[in-house]
Amino acid sequence: MAYIPLEAHLPGITGLLEYRKDSAAPIRELTQILLRGPSTLTEGERELIATVVSNKNECRFCTAAHTAAANILLGEQETSAKVKEDLLNAPVSEKMKVLLTIASQVQVSGKNVTVAAIRKAKDEGATDIEIHDTVLIAALFCLYNRYVDGLATVTPTDASFYNSLGERLKQHGYNRLPQGYDHLKKQSAE
Amino acid sequence: MAYIPLEAHLPGITGLLEYRKDSAAPIRELTQILLRGPSTLTEGERELIATVVSNKNECRFCTAAHTAAANILLGEQETSAKVKEDLLNAPVSEKMKVLLTIASQVQVSGKNVTVAAIRKAKDEGATDIEIHDTVLIAALFCLYNRYVDGLATVTPTDASFYNSLGERLKQHGYNRLPQGYDHLKKQSAE
Repeated sequence: MAYIPLEAHLPGITGLLEYRKDSAAPIRELTQILLRGPSTLTEGERELIATVVSNKNECRFCTAAHTAAANILLGEQETSAKVKEDLLNAPVSEKMKVLLTIASQVQVSGKNVTVAAIRKAKDEGATDIEIHDTVLIAALFCLYNRYVDGLATVTPTDASFYNSLGERLKQHGYNRLPQGYDHLKKQSAE
Repeated sequence: MAYIPLEAHLPGITGLLEYRKDSAAPIRELTQILLRGPSTLTEGERELIATVVSNKNECRFCTAAHTAAANILLGEQETSAKVKEDLLNAPVSEKMKVLLTIASQVQVSGKNVTVAAIRKAKDEGATDIEIHDTVLIAALFCLYNRYVDGLATVTPTDASFYNSLGERLKQHGYNRLPQGYDHLKKQSAE
């Protein structure tokens, strides 16, 4: 039971984004720009940043949602599992390992980002904008995770919910789309 | 020296919001809605939420900026100092004490927000939207603080910089305003 009255069939972030639509609009827009806009990082790589940060914040809803989105975008489930459990041996590039390390540092505090990590990221070919976006995506999920858990929103336990949500995030991104949304509503109410 | 090339005369968040203007636009908009939009919390009270969270995150730039904004809006400096140092004895309403306690819980983790704090907030007359906005403002400053410190932006040490910034935040809010901005540029370069 959430701390404020949210529509019962809209769990996690979905109910919050309907609760106050005026503040939801720029949150959706920022996420769409960072996770789906033009970038030299793939959509799957950016979903992995969201996944790692949400997992470190122990936000079950966001972790499951972005793990599902990453899996669908990458076409396999191994990478998202490995970056959460054993990053240094995960099947991602050396550059992504450092960027995910930086994201993990941001999760603790902005002050935790080390000169050494930034230098290594640049040595592995990360551009300034990739470093910028990694920090901002990690910071954005520190917002999301606190928003979702701070108001005690409901976390579905059935994997099918997150698979549907991940499919929607792949197909439609983070914009408000009544059609994809209705589809989700049905899934969630089942 | 920041981790990415930012304009030297734009410290803290100001250089970041110019570095990537497309992502800056929804960040500015969200902040404007939450801190300056219609609300039963005063602008000064909302700046106190930003101040308390930034202070707990030890983000010196954001703490100084929002302390200055709160002081200007409240017309005195005692309240902002007290809410940071000794919240329970600060000269704010009982409702604000609980909302600032909830904001402090969010700063640690969304999961740290307690049923007891929410119940007390409601007992003290806090509305659902006030609780929602407190959580989201606290989460937003967890984003800002990580963005500012995660990229090692410059923190001015002269109080006059923050007074000018606070004055601008009172007069113009969080929208991008070239004129107020040029004024700040001059201040910062002095």
